[in-house]
Amino acid sequence: MSAERVPISFKDEVPAGEDRLRRVCQTCGFVDYVNPRIVTGVVALQGDRILLCRRAIDPRKGFWTLPAGFLELGESVEQGAVREAQEEAGAELELEGLLAVYSIPRIGQVQIFYRARLLNTPKAGTESLEVMLARWDDIPWKDLAFSSVRWALEHHRASEGQTAFAPFSNPPGTDQLTR
Amino acid sequence: MSAERVPISFKDEVPAGEDRLRRVCQTCGFVDYVNPRIVTGVVALQGDRILLCRRAIDPRKGFWTLPAGFLELGESVEQGAVREAQEEAGAELELEGLLAVYSIPRIGQVQIFYRARLLNTPKAGTESLEVMLARWDDIPWKDLAFSSVRWALEHHRASEGQTAFAPFSNPPGTDQLTR
Repeated sequence: MSAERVPISFKDEVPAGEDRLRRVCQTCGFVDYVNPRIVTGVVALQGDRILLCRRAIDPRKGFWTLPAGFLELGESVEQGAVREAQEEAGAELELEGLLAVYSIPRIGQVQIFYRARLLNTPKAGTESLEVMLARWDDIPWKDLAFSSVRWALEHHRASEGQTAFAPFSNPPGTDQLTR
Repeated sequence: MSAERVPISFKDEVPAGEDRLRRVCQTCGFVDYVNPRIVTGVVALQGDRILLCRRAIDPRKGFWTLPAGFLELGESVEQGAVREAQEEAGAELELEGLLAVYSIPRIGQVQIFYRARLLNTPKAGTESLEVMLARWDDIPWKDLAFSSVRWALEHHRASEGQTAFAPFSNPPGTDQLTR
């Protein structure tokens, strides 16, 4: 309400009824519950070629990545993966199933990758300098943005052709249930 | 800083450089990035019996659930599942692999369940009224706390005995890497 804003000032405190330190704003009392965030992405294939994007933004600007980004409120993990591929590479996808769940506690992330079929010709979105469809031997291994990109590519390779590959997701029609 | 705290007051605004509304505190300017949170849990078996906990806290106090809770910063999804089972049921577990990833956008949650073996005799923690080891036919289906508990139980049942069940997680020793 006030036009004049007091600078935010966090301090670690254990809130009443809790068992661990949380960041509490000393100006307004806001408890900043910071939980790990979810990155959702895809290994998307067209024939034997894999969709990669060269990052136009930091971190790791100029390096190659798989289409992936932070899951937003109001979408399923699958919807987030499809949205990110659309935003970063103009990609239309058909998801084919869960590939991997990676935990990266040091940066507070859980990364979830799906296998997908790329249905159109991709083009760089605003967060990408360019896109490529790379055959396995053409993947720019030394210029990948993150270790998890390499993991997902290698796990894709290790699981190719496997059909009995069956982690579960929501039963049909239940994305919006509360309990 | 100030001992007097001004009440927090959020308003939806689109921050500069962003494409969607975020909650911005009108007192201090804090941008409250709210992303979906991760619930991590287990279907833990001892012989043919499944570990269930009766909730001592809201929501759904008095109803039965699987050991599960919010993933905290600094832990992997697997570590969080093990911690929650320890806290809620005094359980020592050996995780056996990913069972399911559920999205529940309406409440901003992604729930990740593992299959596990229960290695000790469980006992109710502070968030549980009691624990039970239920044979399939003894599961209190009408008194389950959440739909996702039922899904995980049914998916466990559907996948029992499957060995070619292979979503990936981190390569060994990489939990703490940044890239």
